[in-house]
Amino acid sequence: MTDDRLRRQIEFIVEIDKLKSVLRQTTLVDGSRRENSAEHSWHIALMAVVLAEHANTEVNLLHTLKMLLIHDTVEIDAGDTFAYDEVGALDKEEREDRAARRIFGLLPEDQRAEFYTIWLEFEARETPESRLANAMDRMMPVLHNYYNHGGTWRRHDIEITRERVEKRVHPIDDGSHELWTFIEELLDDAVGRGMLTP
Amino acid sequence: MTDDRLRRQIEFIVEIDKLKSVLRQTTLVDGSRRENSAEHSWHIALMAVVLAEHANTEVNLLHTLKMLLIHDTVEIDAGDTFAYDEVGALDKEEREDRAARRIFGLLPEDQRAEFYTIWLEFEARETPESRLANAMDRMMPVLHNYYNHGGTWRRHDIEITRERVEKRVHPIDDGSHELWTFIEELLDDAVGRGMLTP
Repeated sequence: MTDDRLRRQIEFIVEIDKLKSVLRQTTLVDGSRRENSAEHSWHIALMAVVLAEHANTEVNLLHTLKMLLIHDTVEIDAGDTFAYDEVGALDKEEREDRAARRIFGLLPEDQRAEFYTIWLEFEARETPESRLANAMDRMMPVLHNYYNHGGTWRRHDIEITRERVEKRVHPIDDGSHELWTFIEELLDDAVGRGMLTP
Repeated sequence: MTDDRLRRQIEFIVEIDKLKSVLRQTTLVDGSRRENSAEHSWHIALMAVVLAEHANTEVNLLHTLKMLLIHDTVEIDAGDTFAYDEVGALDKEEREDRAARRIFGLLPEDQRAEFYTIWLEFEARETPESRLANAMDRMMPVLHNYYNHGGTWRRHDIEITRERVEKRVHPIDDGSHELWTFIEELLDDAVGRGMLTP
């Protein structure tokens, strides 16, 4: 007979399938459709494997990957809040905390506590791992937009300027000065090519 | 100026976005659409974090996660070969090897070699990490089908019986006897409920 511990783990695994139906504002690089938070999580996790060497401080890569794989699951209940949505931002924290308690609460107690702590760590951006993880998360939409002729920088009613993008993605610098320099060059180029308002 | 190493890494990261457009036969658990290989990779990676404790032998979880995040990227060129497609299986290995050489070849040499080796390790199923990784990969479609009223077990022209499914997913046992026992119970139940031909 399967024990209760495994049953709870399976229940969590089946539940998080719903993250595949949470749509982000960003499209795929080819612009064919909006991307979802599950495939985005895969992308930034593999990105971290490739780019971890550029972190400002040495990181525990396993811990960083756990963080990237887990951090968006709260969106199953809380939805994806667009980076430049100031109204949505107001109660984002409360909505996501409620979601974290329910979703991680499906797991056995020790794993619930571990996942919840890792999620809080990601949000707080205070450890080397969470700084690198956040750098990945902020950097990816810049790549998507740049390689898709401006993407969501040009798509929304909200006016998105270089200044706003820079403010939004500035946490990249806390994770990696090297990657931040690269992103600054990319934004310069995006402005130069008319993809992004100066 | 951004150096050549970082440029190659970014090129790889942008290229693998295409995995989000590679469709698998399996649908989401809610049956709303077919899932893609990128979101599937995220799902089995997080599954491994949750279930690693059930592995037959202790595993290096970081190595397992790298394997799961990387292993499907070859499908960008080679496509997803359906598990019960005997014709597709004939040249699968050759197609995927060519893909691995091109796609990992975008990376700097040391990372190209690392990723290619990890991919070969996954395919060979000889190490504890690759056995656990393969167990995750084989187990997930069983969960999807079971929680979606039979899913692809009932959808295809090809006759899929319990015996064929069991043969296909038997590598789960090499990764974890405990999870294999659980899956056997699930298959019994699926047959009992008429989701799967005995």
